[in-house]
Amino acid sequence: MIKHYQELIERALEEDGAYADITTLSTVPEDQQAQAMLLARQVGVVAGLTIALDVFRTLDERVEVEVVVQDGVTVEANAVLARLHGSARSILSAERVALNFLGRLSGVATLTAQCVHVVEGTHTRILDTRKTTPTLRQLEKTAVLLGGGYNHRFNLSDGVLIKDNHIKAAGGITQAITGARRMAPHLLKIECECETLAEVEEAVKARADVVLLDNMDIEAMRSAVMLLRREAPYVLIEASGNIGANMTRLAEVAATGVDFISLGAITHSVPNFDVSLEFA
Amino acid sequence: MIKHYQELIERALEEDGAYADITTLSTVPEDQQAQAMLLARQVGVVAGLTIALDVFRTLDERVEVEVVVQDGVTVEANAVLARLHGSARSILSAERVALNFLGRLSGVATLTAQCVHVVEGTHTRILDTRKTTPTLRQLEKTAVLLGGGYNHRFNLSDGVLIKDNHIKAAGGITQAITGARRMAPHLLKIECECETLAEVEEAVKARADVVLLDNMDIEAMRSAVMLLRREAPYVLIEASGNIGANMTRLAEVAATGVDFISLGAITHSVPNFDVSLEFA
Amino acid sequence: MIKHYQELIERALEEDGAYADITTLSTVPEDQQAQAMLLARQVGVVAGLTIALDVFRTLDERVEVEVVVQDGVTVEANAVLARLHGSARSILSAERVALNFLGRLSGVATLTAQCVHVVEGTHTRILDTRKTTPTLRQLEKTAVLLGGGYNHRFNLSDGVLIKDNHIKAAGGITQAITGARRMAPHLLKIECECETLAEVEEAVKARADVVLLDNMDIEAMRSAVMLLRREAPYVLIEASGNIGANMTRLAEVAATGVDFISLGAITHSVPNFDVSLEFA
Amino acid sequence: MIKHYQELIERALEEDGAYADITTLSTVPEDQQAQAMLLARQVGVVAGLTIALDVFRTLDERVEVEVVVQDGVTVEANAVLARLHGSARSILSAERVALNFLGRLSGVATLTAQCVHVVEGTHTRILDTRKTTPTLRQLEKTAVLLGGGYNHRFNLSDGVLIKDNHIKAAGGITQAITGARRMAPHLLKIECECETLAEVEEAVKARADVVLLDNMDIEAMRSAVMLLRREAPYVLIEASGNIGANMTRLAEVAATGVDFISLGAITHSVPNFDVSLEFA
Amino acid sequence: MIKHYQELIERALEEDGAYADITTLSTVPEDQQAQAMLLARQVGVVAGLTIALDVFRTLDERVEVEVVVQDGVTVEANAVLARLHGSARSILSAERVALNFLGRLSGVATLTAQCVHVVEGTHTRILDTRKTTPTLRQLEKTAVLLGGGYNHRFNLSDGVLIKDNHIKAAGGITQAITGARRMAPHLLKIECECETLAEVEEAVKARADVVLLDNMDIEAMRSAVMLLRREAPYVLIEASGNIGANMTRLAEVAATGVDFISLGAITHSVPNFDVSLEFA
Amino acid sequence: MIKHYQELIERALEEDGAYADITTLSTVPEDQQAQAMLLARQVGVVAGLTIALDVFRTLDERVEVEVVVQDGVTVEANAVLARLHGSARSILSAERVALNFLGRLSGVATLTAQCVHVVEGTHTRILDTRKTTPTLRQLEKTAVLLGGGYNHRFNLSDGVLIKDNHIKAAGGITQAITGARRMAPHLLKIECECETLAEVEEAVKARADVVLLDNMDIEAMRSAVMLLRREAPYVLIEASGNIGANMTRLAEVAATGVDFISLGAITHSVPNFDVSLEFA
Repeated sequence: MIKHYQELIERALEEDGAYADITTLSTVPEDQQAQAMLLARQVGVVAGLTIALDVFRTLDERVEVEVVVQDGVTVEANAVLARLHGSARSILSAERVALNFLGRLSGVATLTAQCVHVVEGTHTRILDTRKTTPTLRQLEKTAVLLGGGYNHRFNLSDGVLIKDNHIKAAGGITQAITGARRMAPHLLKIECECETLAEVEEAVKARADVVLLDNMDIEAMRSAVMLLRREAPYVLIEASGNIGANMTRLAEVAATGVDFISLGAITHSVPNFDVSLEFA
Repeated sequence: MIKHYQELIERALEEDGAYADITTLSTVPEDQQAQAMLLARQVGVVAGLTIALDVFRTLDERVEVEVVVQDGVTVEANAVLARLHGSARSILSAERVALNFLGRLSGVATLTAQCVHVVEGTHTRILDTRKTTPTLRQLEKTAVLLGGGYNHRFNLSDGVLIKDNHIKAAGGITQAITGARRMAPHLLKIECECETLAEVEEAVKARADVVLLDNMDIEAMRSAVMLLRREAPYVLIEASGNIGANMTRLAEVAATGVDFISLGAITHSVPNFDVSLEFA
Repeated sequence: MIKHYQELIERALEEDGAYADITTLSTVPEDQQAQAMLLARQVGVVAGLTIALDVFRTLDERVEVEVVVQDGVTVEANAVLARLHGSARSILSAERVALNFLGRLSGVATLTAQCVHVVEGTHTRILDTRKTTPTLRQLEKTAVLLGGGYNHRFNLSDGVLIKDNHIKAAGGITQAITGARRMAPHLLKIECECETLAEVEEAVKARADVVLLDNMDIEAMRSAVMLLRREAPYVLIEASGNIGANMTRLAEVAATGVDFISLGAITHSVPNFDVSLEFA
Repeated sequence: MIKHYQELIERALEEDGAYADITTLSTVPEDQQAQAMLLARQVGVVAGLTIALDVFRTLDERVEVEVVVQDGVTVEANAVLARLHGSARSILSAERVALNFLGRLSGVATLTAQCVHVVEGTHTRILDTRKTTPTLRQLEKTAVLLGGGYNHRFNLSDGVLIKDNHIKAAGGITQAITGARRMAPHLLKIECECETLAEVEEAVKARADVVLLDNMDIEAMRSAVMLLRREAPYVLIEASGNIGANMTRLAEVAATGVDFISLGAITHSVPNFDVSLEFA
Repeated sequence: MIKHYQELIERALEEDGAYADITTLSTVPEDQQAQAMLLARQVGVVAGLTIALDVFRTLDERVEVEVVVQDGVTVEANAVLARLHGSARSILSAERVALNFLGRLSGVATLTAQCVHVVEGTHTRILDTRKTTPTLRQLEKTAVLLGGGYNHRFNLSDGVLIKDNHIKAAGGITQAITGARRMAPHLLKIECECETLAEVEEAVKARADVVLLDNMDIEAMRSAVMLLRREAPYVLIEASGNIGANMTRLAEVAATGVDFISLGAITHSVPNFDVSLEFA
Repeated sequence: MIKHYQELIERALEEDGAYADITTLSTVPEDQQAQAMLLARQVGVVAGLTIALDVFRTLDERVEVEVVVQDGVTVEANAVLARLHGSARSILSAERVALNFLGRLSGVATLTAQCVHVVEGTHTRILDTRKTTPTLRQLEKTAVLLGGGYNHRFNLSDGVLIKDNHIKAAGGITQAITGARRMAPHLLKIECECETLAEVEEAVKARADVVLLDNMDIEAMRSAVMLLRREAPYVLIEASGNIGANMTRLAEVAATGVDFISLGAITHSVPNFDVSLEFA
């Protein structure tokens, strides 16, 4: 297992009292073996199966797992995702934590895939944001990739994205971009949020590498894209704001020709993917 | 601050690279002070404000916060939740982590409150489940309380809930309940999941303290409640399964007279609550 | 190994400087192999053998162990508990930490077994308390089980036990029980400490599920048991206070017919069990 | 507070569920303030009061404490050790962890003081050993000092003590001492365990700095002391083995003129010191 | 203090046994107060003073510090950097850890400043690398900034730098750059290491944003710079390899007109800066 | 692997973003296998190879390593130190952290060996100090041993070394040594720093076990050695101060006949040892 997730799994198992599962300890014989299946209960894209299986093996390294479906695969309802064999007690005590990871992450991948589907046929990519669950970002961003989306910067240390409050604090778009150019590591591009065409023009003049069209209506967005393609063809264009997982709006934004649409909803407002564990 | 959350906040800030926010460091002067407001952007119940404010103070203990609305209060759109005063850099670098906590937890409280509203006028209580975000359970269960719901057991070590897989492993409902009675700590009641009336009768005979009616249709549920009230008036009744946040179904289940309805959806399928931070 | 104890073992090994054992490093050749035995030096019940053996394997995963006696078995003096084979250095450097766990936990199991022996023939169970060694509670409570005792609640989050200070703070027994009934999770019974018959009566009226007779003399205890059996046959009865490991007093209390006697002494005042490690 | 103990306190509070004390939360009003006293219930030497008070302040930094008696002071039964003022909830939720530290450590100091009292009038010092509670060694060794004892080496990295198994592995006392002399840091003395006079003579010839007389009878011990004082007056003499907290035996050993008696019992077989917390 | 460093300081203090400094405990009275000065013993640029002072305050929060010279300032030999006032014990026990941080980090800043001085008058910037001390990277990179240098990427997650082994594995420069363009986050520029002019041309064709001239002789480097300025004026140029802190070579490389020179030596081969602590 | 280093390796890998190496992930196919060699690029003594190889296995347990040269061996330039076989991605992502350990520690061993070489033929031993990199002390002290040096005390808890500030605080050499004798554990020798012959005489009278000649010129040092050998032949003599890695001065100091020379430079001012990783 990637060592990076070990600690997270262990904290989750402790949180759930999995090492002191009194129901299981008092109803299931110590030496009872069981076969079990992880089952999808709906259509969607699987994500988090690897970590879910690691949950069982973390609780009890003797639990054997057979992966039936890889992370990233689209499944039908009632598809078998994996089979488990081992101590009935261990399987039952780890079940809920495993399903909590699997349900959340497959939910992210499935919702992402739905959004990606909407923009198919355009060159627009669906991006995630930093609006992720605290301490689960790496897992959720991986689920976005599995759903066909792309990752925006991982965090504040690995990308420059100048937002309205930075602009206010710096005294203007030009000042903000100039400051960033002077101090940020030379391997980072500079992205600047703009809400009007005037701001877009100022950002381009100040030599932004990427422009983020925030909260613009479709008409303004279309104008901004035209302006940028004409005057600064090397500049990348991202759109965001009030799009959520509204599929109609998403299609309209993609049709404006932006390079990227970033969506908070694919990580912060995710319906759980329905999965269950059944004893054979 | 409750020490218990300190580690979680610090992990989240590190995950977000908040100590190396290159955009802010390169656009905002070191000594610039700012006033900012946390604003609700929709109607709902606030939760997680305390921890959100602790995020700012963890990054920079000199940031001053003024709480305008307490956790648990129902607010209108555009309500000011809190005011911040301090280093502009610190406020900007901590913003996203703070909003991620606040948006998720207020989302839980708000969805819970909607469900609680549906069952108003009955004696039925809305319960949460263990279907929570890994490592955030305490926060989410507190948000459920703030939304007017009640907490089911916190984890596997502090409650006995016999489910179908336990029953299979134990060889029957009677055996499972008897085992639990013999070994579980004397301060714990014993709850048993039942899917049919026959199972309910067996559970009562085996002296279950609480019966969980799982995945029953309304008719069966009504019969079960009648049976239980007549033959075992001291037994508590919980319903679960396929209810989600479906409000019509929820009202019907409550109308059967069960004591509790437990809902995974209020913690695992939560629309983010819309909040933002604005500089004054 | 149960992951849960790994951290504790590692902290204990570091505390003992086991990775920099200068005596062993300077007197024992690096490649020397050794056979060693863990020996009981007194009669008693073994507990903590599993964790003691894990100590050796944590320091050096190549140390091979052979378990001769399982945790929970009663042994005579000079019984061989386990055999070890591996690097002489590793065995010597881990010895003290291993024996410290084994001596303490077998001490708990042995003292518990002595108390359980005294109440044999009655239906009274010996319970532990929360008066355990900070951070070793799980291990000590397991040792109590191995000695034939039973576990009271694990901690403050998984049981309701209303004590005198709670009663004072709540304004009376009735208020305290009512408050607990309203807010505590529905799977938890409510236990209330009582020092007089009047308090017992009030607790029963307020619908306590369990009554704790605290610091009562034998006569009062007998009256309380009679009262409770007559008026509230479903209420469980626990006794505590000033019993310690005083075996005469213990027999008298059991003879009153209480369901449980809880004893702080079996975890807080434990003579170490005498064990040693001998090279073959 | 000394930072070193912070982590231990926090682990203990979490172990006890002190942040989710459902009894207190459901019976004590949130804003209720309380005055409380920590009381000794027996004669003895206080130790661990500092850390006990830090437990309350760790749970809730607003709890105010007034130290009445310093660690190391001998008190009578019913002596007030400290006064607390603050949230009734916080005081109740932290009480058990605080008392567990205080009871154990005052137990160590009190038992040590009894042993020290027995050897008063001789030049013999009472030493502790490495037979301490895993992860609590620093606290227990400090309690030994408070009881008037002295500390042996803290752990395996800061002292050379050659025991029987080292001698076996090295091929003899001379080889073991020579090896230690060659490799151990130059600031460390070399102590060698001896069970016979012949071994004592060999150790002295090999230039041991300290000799540990292990498991000798009084007669042999007396001869060894005479031999050593005559032939190697600069060598320090320690006695150990089968002394426990047997006070008669202790006096006899001290009378032989040894410099030190090391006692495992003062840390591994300690009766808890009786303390309680009372609301004013 | 920035929370991020707290853990590092605490680990360093524990490593040094600062909480059990037996020399100080046995020679310095508990209540003795002292005034002390941190003194530079050589010319150079100060770095790490902030963290050094935090070391004292971590051990004992009552130690008062007065900063005389800010991090980043160039000082003469015997300059007073800071004054301390507080418990003599605390100051002595924390001294070595504090000086170890201060000596290393001021060494980094001072060596960096010497390199920066050599390239003064050119537009070339001195960059650090990832050749830093494990777990001290943030501190060392900050010291580089204080010495007048600039930071290259912080780690593998926040910059794309294609090296020879990546090129081999990808099957060529073009393939590697294309792969990176397809998958790396859109905010990151792509830098490619080149050892010949042919490679530089291929990198430019493949649309690298930055070219790293590695291990080229001065002549080749000059040709590469000319080629790049002519054909790809927007491409940034970095030089590295075999430069170390060789000042003549450094000047020659800067004279070729490259934008950046990255130097492992300024973090991996640093003479300690001579500092001491003196009691007043 | 020695468990003790696991955490350090994991922190270093996380610091370097090794689990999110976007360059490698985007340029190297997931299933590509590679053979690689760790190569010395200069003459010197190897140290840290074990931990460097553990870095690769920590990132990916399937990477196979073949050790060609053991830690402690002196190698020529271009010597193969070890061979690796496994996932190309894993090898590349772990490379820098592994080389950072290996380069630093082999640097320490190599510089130590140079100093040891200078004093060959005398009985003087080269000692390290506590002037090590924060949190890497154990590794650096092991590298000193591998280079042929010896270790001074590990930290403040395992040796008594009275320095000038202790003497000031205690009120004189005699008072300081007497205090230490009274309170320090009996297994520790007492070393006292002296700057003049008069101080040496006072230290001997106060019964110091070891004398540290600090910052003396060669003449004074020679007189001190003569004095000590004549009047206190059992006292060990250490020299320190202003020696650095100045080889001429080192030879002169050794020629005075001191037992030990302690050198901060061998851990605090170390040129990195040049190593690289090459794909086969």
